[in-house]
Amino acid sequence: MKVAVDAMGGDYAPDEIVLGALQAAKEYTEENIEIVLVGDQAQITQSLDRLGDWQNFNIRIHHASEVIDTHESPGAAVRKKKDASVVVATGLVKQGQCDVAICAGSTGAAVAAALLGLGRIKGIERPAIATPMPNLTGTTVLVDSGAQVDSKPKHLVQNAIMGAIYAEYVLNIPRPRVGLLNIGEEESKGNEQVLATYPLLQQLSTVNFIGNVEGRDIPRGSVDVVVCDGFVGNIVLKLGEGMAGAILQLVKDSIKSSGFWTKMASMFVLPALRGLKKKLDYAEYGGAPLLGVNGGFIICHGSSRAKAIKNAIRVAKEFTEQDVVAHIRENIAKEGVVTNE
Amino acid sequence: MKVAVDAMGGDYAPDEIVLGALQAAKEYTEENIEIVLVGDQAQITQSLDRLGDWQNFNIRIHHASEVIDTHESPGAAVRKKKDASVVVATGLVKQGQCDVAICAGSTGAAVAAALLGLGRIKGIERPAIATPMPNLTGTTVLVDSGAQVDSKPKHLVQNAIMGAIYAEYVLNIPRPRVGLLNIGEEESKGNEQVLATYPLLQQLSTVNFIGNVEGRDIPRGSVDVVVCDGFVGNIVLKLGEGMAGAILQLVKDSIKSSGFWTKMASMFVLPALRGLKKKLDYAEYGGAPLLGVNGGFIICHGSSRAKAIKNAIRVAKEFTEQDVVAHIRENIAKEGVVTNE
Repeated sequence: MKVAVDAMGGDYAPDEIVLGALQAAKEYTEENIEIVLVGDQAQITQSLDRLGDWQNFNIRIHHASEVIDTHESPGAAVRKKKDASVVVATGLVKQGQCDVAICAGSTGAAVAAALLGLGRIKGIERPAIATPMPNLTGTTVLVDSGAQVDSKPKHLVQNAIMGAIYAEYVLNIPRPRVGLLNIGEEESKGNEQVLATYPLLQQLSTVNFIGNVEGRDIPRGSVDVVVCDGFVGNIVLKLGEGMAGAILQLVKDSIKSSGFWTKMASMFVLPALRGLKKKLDYAEYGGAPLLGVNGGFIICHGSSRAKAIKNAIRVAKEFTEQDVVAHIRENIAKEGVVTNE
Repeated sequence: MKVAVDAMGGDYAPDEIVLGALQAAKEYTEENIEIVLVGDQAQITQSLDRLGDWQNFNIRIHHASEVIDTHESPGAAVRKKKDASVVVATGLVKQGQCDVAICAGSTGAAVAAALLGLGRIKGIERPAIATPMPNLTGTTVLVDSGAQVDSKPKHLVQNAIMGAIYAEYVLNIPRPRVGLLNIGEEESKGNEQVLATYPLLQQLSTVNFIGNVEGRDIPRGSVDVVVCDGFVGNIVLKLGEGMAGAILQLVKDSIKSSGFWTKMASMFVLPALRGLKKKLDYAEYGGAPLLGVNGGFIICHGSSRAKAIKNAIRVAKEFTEQDVVAHIRENIAKEGVVTNE
């Protein structure tokens, strides 16, 4: 399996991206994964050389001379900069030289590069990002978490079908519970968008639709796949990340401001908190697949460090091994009538 | 000051509502607050008698023979049941017999009763619920958190004006920072609704508009008033509540599953955690005002227990003392041109 990693995208590129890639190459030596770092050859070589014995691992560089900045207009930048690292990485997947691409740069540019470079799966009008969020008992996937806004009901239906496949094949959740994110459980609740979506989701044969779910169902873990448009999903995702960080901060502060004995005691408790932090750490999940394009494409947080990139390579591996793209093609064809409404 | 409390609405009505009202009456003896419990006289009397010396406090019963159930269609129920507790409580405000009404029953019915009973402030097309959410440093108000869906840009502008007044006069935040909830900070980000709202917010003279904010800005406390439509706001609110509860549960579990010394140590740490829980407890905030109607109207969580009701009475008191309705009238008139666009 070959993974193209955009080495130039993200707040800590190229150093942290290169480090994460090398860590993955070391961890997956047995599994025949080749990692192709895409970007400025000189910069990437410098980063690698600083890390030492990289030449012993299955990692190589594919030069790309340009970089897309987060402030550029995504569509225009992707069209103009044919030799941008994200465009070249996507091209390697399109040409069959790699199985999957990974990008931690501008999400807008990544989505545009994937759409233009790989095209959409037949029956899918808009791709969606499927982001896993930790909950009390496991993981809930949020589809879409930022690729589409002003989604029509049919787009939400497509999100449901794709999200269910990802939860089942990559997250190993059998018959995942798919819920429509809404402001009440009753079918009569919601805005125009979700009111029109509800009956369409009920008609699906490949999706275990459990009805409307509310914000609180995500941390509770009472739903496996949460269907929403990218505007709502992105707000939910960022609120979730922010709250996890803020509450752990509050726990730490509240221990620190306590008396002597509590402080002594907290020496024993803080390791437990670190375990908890790991559970809530989004970097553990690495990357989120862009579902609906004709090929593997994993999007990472712009603030990804080495750990997140290493884990994104694991996600890319599972995504490819489970052939998620083929399953989407199959189920979208099965549900054809509903998704066109 | 007179507060009408719908004693029949909420999951724990009438007992917890009546208990909370009595606690408030005891706490505010010096401040000349009369509490009027609206609902079934026999049931309320029974609840009160169980609590003992209620006759020594400034509390009385106003009989109402009907109750609106959470499963009824709000608009129809409010029109049909003229003697429903929430309708009668609203009527007391309309007739000037009370200054403000409090309701923990169906939010839909409460909003309908307030709209029909009190009418809207001139220039306001849709009322909005302003719910405070705790953050790292204080409180962020979410406007709207569930009264309106499919809001037009002008409705979001009205939410901004009203939310700023509430934050300034009731939460004592001078020149509150007002942000538009979006999926990125750049003006070019978002769906059609927020893209059209951004330039309108920039034109406001009574609002300190700081631009777009993201989900993570809420727990961080980098914004005081978050403007959104009720669909997004309600999802955000319930996710926030659910996450606070889930993370504290994880902290507890993670301490419990640790070794002997950690368990011993946690005896000292758990009191600190309880302080934290109080900080994150939404019941501490009591109730959220319905802004934009011609009179005081406070909406409580359906699961409110006595503490929440007691705190809602405090909110009602501050709302009335600060004359929020008059300030809204004034600022909406000042901003007239913008809010009509």
